[in-house]
Amino acid sequence: MNSQPIGARKIQGRRALLSEIRRAGQIARIDLAARTGISRATVTTITAALLHEGLIEEVARPITATEQARGRPRVDLKLRGAAHLVAGLKIANRAISVALVDFEGKLVGQYDAPLERAVNRAPDLVVQLTGILDRAMAETGRTRGDLSAVGVGISGTVDATRGFVYWSPSLGSRNLPFGEMLARALGLPVFLDNDTNLVALAEQSFGLGRGINDFIVVTIESGVGMGIVLGGALYRGTRGCGAEFGHIKVHLDGALCRCGQRGCLEAYVADYALLREAAIMGQQDTALPDEARVEKLLRAAREGQPTARSIVARAGRMFSMGLANLVNIFDPQLIILSGERMQFDHLYASEVIDTMRSSIVDIDKAPPEVKIHKWGDLMWAKGAAAFALGGVIEAAISTRGQHAN
Amino acid sequence: MNSQPIGARKIQGRRALLSEIRRAGQIARIDLAARTGISRATVTTITAALLHEGLIEEVARPITATEQARGRPRVDLKLRGAAHLVAGLKIANRAISVALVDFEGKLVGQYDAPLERAVNRAPDLVVQLTGILDRAMAETGRTRGDLSAVGVGISGTVDATRGFVYWSPSLGSRNLPFGEMLARALGLPVFLDNDTNLVALAEQSFGLGRGINDFIVVTIESGVGMGIVLGGALYRGTRGCGAEFGHIKVHLDGALCRCGQRGCLEAYVADYALLREAAIMGQQDTALPDEARVEKLLRAAREGQPTARSIVARAGRMFSMGLANLVNIFDPQLIILSGERMQFDHLYASEVIDTMRSSIVDIDKAPPEVKIHKWGDLMWAKGAAAFALGGVIEAAISTRGQHAN
Repeated sequence: MNSQPIGARKIQGRRALLSEIRRAGQIARIDLAARTGISRATVTTITAALLHEGLIEEVARPITATEQARGRPRVDLKLRGAAHLVAGLKIANRAISVALVDFEGKLVGQYDAPLERAVNRAPDLVVQLTGILDRAMAETGRTRGDLSAVGVGISGTVDATRGFVYWSPSLGSRNLPFGEMLARALGLPVFLDNDTNLVALAEQSFGLGRGINDFIVVTIESGVGMGIVLGGALYRGTRGCGAEFGHIKVHLDGALCRCGQRGCLEAYVADYALLREAAIMGQQDTALPDEARVEKLLRAAREGQPTARSIVARAGRMFSMGLANLVNIFDPQLIILSGERMQFDHLYASEVIDTMRSSIVDIDKAPPEVKIHKWGDLMWAKGAAAFALGGVIEAAISTRGQHAN
Repeated sequence: MNSQPIGARKIQGRRALLSEIRRAGQIARIDLAARTGISRATVTTITAALLHEGLIEEVARPITATEQARGRPRVDLKLRGAAHLVAGLKIANRAISVALVDFEGKLVGQYDAPLERAVNRAPDLVVQLTGILDRAMAETGRTRGDLSAVGVGISGTVDATRGFVYWSPSLGSRNLPFGEMLARALGLPVFLDNDTNLVALAEQSFGLGRGINDFIVVTIESGVGMGIVLGGALYRGTRGCGAEFGHIKVHLDGALCRCGQRGCLEAYVADYALLREAAIMGQQDTALPDEARVEKLLRAAREGQPTARSIVARAGRMFSMGLANLVNIFDPQLIILSGERMQFDHLYASEVIDTMRSSIVDIDKAPPEVKIHKWGDLMWAKGAAAFALGGVIEAAISTRGQHAN
């Protein structure tokens, strides 16, 4: 910005107008000027360039006779969906989900593929992702060359600014420039982030977080995660390892967590925590896979078996305590509990929400709303696509004329 | 903004330039244009108006021959200190501190006065604050009419956007429009906020937080509090009751807290928590005031008395756990531990910081820096002044020519 003040100012104008068009869906030039505070002449100049570059398009809008009499324009501007196509990939435990999203944010294709192993060497995972992405493109009659960028969500600790993975349960080793490795293999820009951050982005772009400034998404899978949106923007922390909801400590010198530390929330609410307690009951068939054992325990709890109920109830109360801590720290407008599997219904239970409400600082104003949003891997993949789309829009703003199709 | 697009644009320019001048201290017009991306012509127009209104002034700056040869200007712009004067008030347990700060943010006077009672009826507190402020002004040869605004920090739960106190230990009743009551009595704009938020603002404006985007201030008084700065701005939460560090739960069904709930961090680290345990030792002289009893306990711990050591050590470990949770959630650049009284040295101890470091998510990158900043009520009052100053600057930006002296 220092060396090109005029360029910087134009970029600011393009960013403000594209953002407003994106937010509004479709909008007349006169309203763009009013909402952004940019003069009508400048709005005309900048939108002419954006039209020329194919980033936006004009659409007719029906207006009333009164509006017409007032000189209300009949033409709105909107993003041009065909301007760019991005893919979002969610790396799950043993599956990959792909979402194809256009420049308007519309889902134009989806694809799921199994992953052979839960933990992979990075080069092997790159090869598998490349193959799956190519199959996803072929499936919808396209090729990888039709993409402007790829977004990827992976669990673990990720520095999204440089696509660097400090640690991930999906990767065999630590400290990998995984985004760069994948970008080289694909020949495309790659935007890599922690998957729970991308769930928050998906909620903001397509879900329950639209129009909400401050909200928190708590994800419930085999562990618990969190994404934080503050002031309308995803908050990632300084090193990329904030929002570690599963590893906040809820008990001094408490239960051992898979991370090696003690007293983490996950060590009380995750699958393995429930199974650790269930094993003490002595009625567990250890030949069964873990998931079946968890289901058996939860069924026993629902049927009123006292020890099973005690195990599940404590997990729920620990989870309430974690949620209450988030409210006491963030005081958000909304908390979204987001997960796919039905087996976590005990964590969505109204007792859990009630206990949370009785553990927050009590003022004479309603506590934050809690909404439950159950969704599958596709929504995680859409979040990854939203991240890539943000990057593509930013590139289109700052490199005029380079990105039109 | 909708009805006056041109006005809105001019306001944006004034805000950008005043902010940059404030950040820089003093700066040439040519650098203002480069740093803000505003054209040199517009910088000249806007700064002429700001000079005319008395908000900024020109100052000479010595330049080298080379700079002169390059046409480097000899004149910088800076805020004009005399443009506005604000007062910041910190309402402490039994004392009021007043800081007088000019438009440049310079401390130009200070005053302390005792408060008769710790808990007051709101109208009585208004009368006392008015009297103390008038004495503070007289003390420095001024009157209340010289002030443009007053900032006030009070402990408790405050909605700063409307100066509304949900609850405060300094006030006898709940749900009071205390900011409005005080503004009416003073005949001045009043900016009221939770006192720990204002400590964070003070650290950002005058202290260890200058130039740091994401940091957390943990205050240690008789309880523990927190202020959050994210993306360079104070984060207050939706209802004004976030950042309740003292009431995050660190133990399910744990020790009873003064707030009536169980397991709050304060219920393990506050004065009363230490005394509750000390009472069990049976060596406590309950005729002594609380503060003397705490000091006696801490002395016994330092001298190696095993039970006293155990009490103090657990408080320290619980505090570590709370700090670790903040790091796991925010991943900030910096944590500032801020408090006045020497008696909290056990919470500043290196063991506490080390335990925190071993309880955060472990990646191959240095953990956030922890700095200790011991200060008195004056710095809290300066934070209140910084808050008022922010309001005065915002008013000066949007109502041209109304605020010159």
